[in-house]
Amino acid sequence: MRMSALAAEAGLPVATVKYYLREGLLHAGTATGATQAVYDEGHVRRLRLVRALTGPVGLSVQQARTVLELVDEPGGDLYSTLGRAVGTLPPAGANPVEAADPYPRARAALEALGQVYDPAFAAVAQLEGALAAAEDAGLAIDGERLVAYGRAATDIAAFDLSRLPTEPHAAVEYTVLGTALYEPVLLALRRLAHQDAAVRRLPQAD
Amino acid sequence: MRMSALAAEAGLPVATVKYYLREGLLHAGTATGATQAVYDEGHVRRLRLVRALTGPVGLSVQQARTVLELVDEPGGDLYSTLGRAVGTLPPAGANPVEAADPYPRARAALEALGQVYDPAFAAVAQLEGALAAAEDAGLAIDGERLVAYGRAATDIAAFDLSRLPTEPHAAVEYTVLGTALYEPVLLALRRLAHQDAAVRRLPQAD
Repeated sequence: MRMSALAAEAGLPVATVKYYLREGLLHAGTATGATQAVYDEGHVRRLRLVRALTGPVGLSVQQARTVLELVDEPGGDLYSTLGRAVGTLPPAGANPVEAADPYPRARAALEALGQVYDPAFAAVAQLEGALAAAEDAGLAIDGERLVAYGRAATDIAAFDLSRLPTEPHAAVEYTVLGTALYEPVLLALRRLAHQDAAVRRLPQAD
Repeated sequence: MRMSALAAEAGLPVATVKYYLREGLLHAGTATGATQAVYDEGHVRRLRLVRALTGPVGLSVQQARTVLELVDEPGGDLYSTLGRAVGTLPPAGANPVEAADPYPRARAALEALGQVYDPAFAAVAQLEGALAAAEDAGLAIDGERLVAYGRAATDIAAFDLSRLPTEPHAAVEYTVLGTALYEPVLLALRRLAHQDAAVRRLPQAD
């Protein structure tokens, strides 16, 4: 297909497709003349991925390029590649702290849950910041809540991993998009589960 | 205590405390002279709440005022009050859609889960937007994933509700802060549970 058809198929303006080509986020089409090229379904899929990364996932073009490089060349250490890909996602990790134990709350929580973790993984800093903010507001997470939340997170992670594609390129893509795009689904479902539980036990006007 | 001690106790600059007084987010102290007043522990607690709402929770001063009004006057219909309080939280609901069925994906999901819900509750629009974004990226939520996520959300909500204070003022405060401040905890725990599950089954470099 020609550029105009590609743009229409991907739901993007032609100028945006040209921009992604210049920035190297989209591979060149097959040249059919000095100024013309044709594109295929692979280009459409790639544009959908770029659109998701720079749209709902919220990455900058530079961050999207990092993810795409990992999708294109996942290498042999898939565990490390997936960790780096997820590390590009917002929220940004806290600034590195120059301390002997930079993430004391997160470390204690993960040890209590018995989880394996890499202290350099961005989510450790995120957990530390989230636990500190809750504590600061007088709603520190106690052991029972940690177990309840940790068990729910483990159940979801087990499901997510059960769907991980075996093909490495697809695995990186699924991990990045699935991590980011299912987060707001989970949060909305939690708020709606609150409503469902509350309607059964709280006083309401007729 | 005096204003300076109050500010120090709450971890805020004096100018910020004065601003909250002027804006009516903090109740006046007990006057001890023409230009002096003393404050008590109730003022400290209130400032901590305001600081959480306008800090990690991310509300504007106007939104915080709405929440504080509901904390101060929860009224007799606690279910409705809690829904309104949570409705002030980000992310903002989608703009009202002029359609016979504005939230088809969310409706189908909630009916599949068998949950009671109010279509005007902001989380319904949030769920619709989140489901649409996932679908658009080629990662539509299927029935099995919906059940897995829905069950986890229900487990968390049951725990959260089990801790709901019986005193209405405290219930509004807990609901708003707990909804907002535990969300990043849950998301970080999910990413860390992914890492814990992945380390057990993916190839890694030595």
